[in-house]
Amino acid sequence: MSTFEQKLEKYAELAVKNGVNIQEGQELVITAPIEAADFVRLVTQKAYQAGAKYVHFNWNDDELTLTRFKYAPESSFREYPEWIAKGLEGLAEKGAAFLDIRIPNPDLLTAIDPGKIAADNKITAEALAPYRHYRMSDKVSWSIVVVPSSGWAQKVFPDLNEEEAVSKLWETIFHLTRADREDPVQAWEEHKQQLSEKANYLNGKKYKKLHYKAPGTDLTIEFNKKHLWASAASSHPDGTVFIKNIPTEEVYTLPLKTGVNGKVTSTMPLNYSGTLIEGLSLTFENGKIVDFSAESGYETLKGLIETDEGSHYLGEVALVPNNSPISQSGLIFFNTLFDENASCHLAIGKAYPTCLEGGTKMTQEELEQHGVNNSLVHVDFMIGSSELDIDGETENGEIEPILRKGLWAI
Amino acid sequence: MSTFEQKLEKYAELAVKNGVNIQEGQELVITAPIEAADFVRLVTQKAYQAGAKYVHFNWNDDELTLTRFKYAPESSFREYPEWIAKGLEGLAEKGAAFLDIRIPNPDLLTAIDPGKIAADNKITAEALAPYRHYRMSDKVSWSIVVVPSSGWAQKVFPDLNEEEAVSKLWETIFHLTRADREDPVQAWEEHKQQLSEKANYLNGKKYKKLHYKAPGTDLTIEFNKKHLWASAASSHPDGTVFIKNIPTEEVYTLPLKTGVNGKVTSTMPLNYSGTLIEGLSLTFENGKIVDFSAESGYETLKGLIETDEGSHYLGEVALVPNNSPISQSGLIFFNTLFDENASCHLAIGKAYPTCLEGGTKMTQEELEQHGVNNSLVHVDFMIGSSELDIDGETENGEIEPILRKGLWAI
Ligand SMILES: [Zn+2]
Ligand SMILES: [Zn+2]
Ligand SMILES: [Zn+2]
Ligand SMILES: [Zn+2]
Repeated sequence: MSTFEQKLEKYAELAVKNGVNIQEGQELVITAPIEAADFVRLVTQKAYQAGAKYVHFNWNDDELTLTRFKYAPESSFREYPEWIAKGLEGLAEKGAAFLDIRIPNPDLLTAIDPGKIAADNKITAEALAPYRHYRMSDKVSWSIVVVPSSGWAQKVFPDLNEEEAVSKLWETIFHLTRADREDPVQAWEEHKQQLSEKANYLNGKKYKKLHYKAPGTDLTIEFNKKHLWASAASSHPDGTVFIKNIPTEEVYTLPLKTGVNGKVTSTMPLNYSGTLIEGLSLTFENGKIVDFSAESGYETLKGLIETDEGSHYLGEVALVPNNSPISQSGLIFFNTLFDENASCHLAIGKAYPTCLEGGTKMTQEELEQHGVNNSLVHVDFMIGSSELDIDGETENGEIEPILRKGLWAI
Repeated sequence: MSTFEQKLEKYAELAVKNGVNIQEGQELVITAPIEAADFVRLVTQKAYQAGAKYVHFNWNDDELTLTRFKYAPESSFREYPEWIAKGLEGLAEKGAAFLDIRIPNPDLLTAIDPGKIAADNKITAEALAPYRHYRMSDKVSWSIVVVPSSGWAQKVFPDLNEEEAVSKLWETIFHLTRADREDPVQAWEEHKQQLSEKANYLNGKKYKKLHYKAPGTDLTIEFNKKHLWASAASSHPDGTVFIKNIPTEEVYTLPLKTGVNGKVTSTMPLNYSGTLIEGLSLTFENGKIVDFSAESGYETLKGLIETDEGSHYLGEVALVPNNSPISQSGLIFFNTLFDENASCHLAIGKAYPTCLEGGTKMTQEELEQHGVNNSLVHVDFMIGSSELDIDGETENGEIEPILRKGLWAI
């Protein structure tokens, strides 16, 4: 039985060693809220001890974000700070690793005009597009981990008091990220192995299409012949293996941009830029979202879909069995990093070029020709449940079960 | 009688309105420790309410600084993050205003090798030189204010407990910055007026030399004929008036680089980059420091003086009467912003080009020709006391008293 401090140290090491897998002499960029300063300090120490040359900080603060939305003039929402955008791009070019430490705050911008938020999201996404392309093409090592805040903890555990909720959320995070194991590094090796077996199976099958069936969902998704299923382990061009999301339970690929048809309904709330979108439904024709609705957060969803051309199409198809540890916890985290790993999901927007054979070496035009969607955004939404069935259709038209009642059938 | 919150708001407004004097549509860059987040949030709100277009943050953290010194490899100390240096320079070029919010931490780096600190200071100063030149030439509006931490408060008030010390330090800061006045803005107008009367008097006299006499001090300082005495109010090229230091009690000018002779001894400790230098003594010949000693912090002083050629010469001559409010408080703040305003002081290093007629329009070569010192550093040290006499020598050799027993004689 480890103490809280021991688990915290293991969690920090997990982020540095398994997450970004920092290399001797490499620079590290930590993007984090100032509220997470204590954990950032621990991670920084671990990074230097692991050989990092320089740790850079890209701090943010929810209260300052809110202050800007409340008090700044309209002109504030017409440009993103160039020095940050260029700074991140330059560090990516230099080969730095990127660790995002996040504190979910799903209700932060609830009272702010969704139009203003959408405008700001778009400006931000445009400014950060080159930097984000480095990440989505695995040209840099990157990883995302979360830490609790009292606000988030009480949203996940509404029946506990503040202190209990924070403590319970830490324990939950340690458990779901395997930081509470005797040897988390070894535990992750085994976990990566298990996930890649599923990915290998699906890559062997090269399904032409997937058919989704669940209440509110009847959807088919086609694939390019060169699509690749991926899982936990990602590879930097220099061979370094990193893990983008801690935790991660998914195997995922990219859809054929124009090959999505039917309707899909979300099964969990989606936290997008400080607003919750609940009960969203999308209807597709030849890949394009031609209709959509939401029980709450409609304007935010509308702003997301209308970001650009690519945000009318899907960029990711991810399979997660309904008995994943996160799903079994029975909790809703109001945070994509956790909730996406409890549930099959799709993403609106940009596809990972890594999920197409040779994709990372293609130009944007070549990727488009192969039906790889591009967009300023990439936003996952959850569609898994114990009522979801997924079938695969092989090249010669045979139908094979992949998921039954939310569980692996392969 | 105002509440703490009211005084805090006035202090924040003082920083935004009198300090940097933010203009409608202007960008503001706040450099601050994350420990000061609460005050930064208040200042940010005030800045947006005063019309700022965008507030940028350049956060720092003492613990992370210490972590780097303790755990980072040697290669970490060979370059400064270019994205920050270029970012600040770019924002200065765009006309942003710069507000530094500081929490003094005089003992932060006491246990670190002074050679390592000196190397890092030099790298930092080299990287930030273009940005700092914008500031020292008044090409951007900038200002510095401080906020307490419990560590600093207990160093200033060692007999009080943590809570009392912090509260007492806040009250002291409010008092010395006039934030506790009914109308701080008006109080500052009057104060600026009083200081500029002294500066005008000295500018009318155009003294050729000053003679300093005190225990451990026997020094003469010559001036270029075009030297200018300045005080609280600084002017941006667009005419905006800003206040660099809040509080400020000094009138100051620049010495003739090669015109300093004799010996000077400090009267207060000097906090330089996380280390205290006490009882320092400098001997000058034709402007150059040819000998130096210190009761403590000798290696740090040595590192400072050996930064470059210019750090062997003086860059500032400042007069502060020994009955200034800060001096009367009888406190030692272990922080230059406060201590320099309790005491006559000199600065090692770069001179303010604003203190020479036409100086801000001169090239570096022209400034050198006029005996204006240049250096990567500018570090004030305090030499005032109730035993300090200063005489002025006029163009035709007459000797006139300027300070007697530390008090104005003019
Ligand atoms: Zn995913
Ligand atoms: Zn995704
Ligand atoms: Zn000064
Ligand atoms: Zn100075």
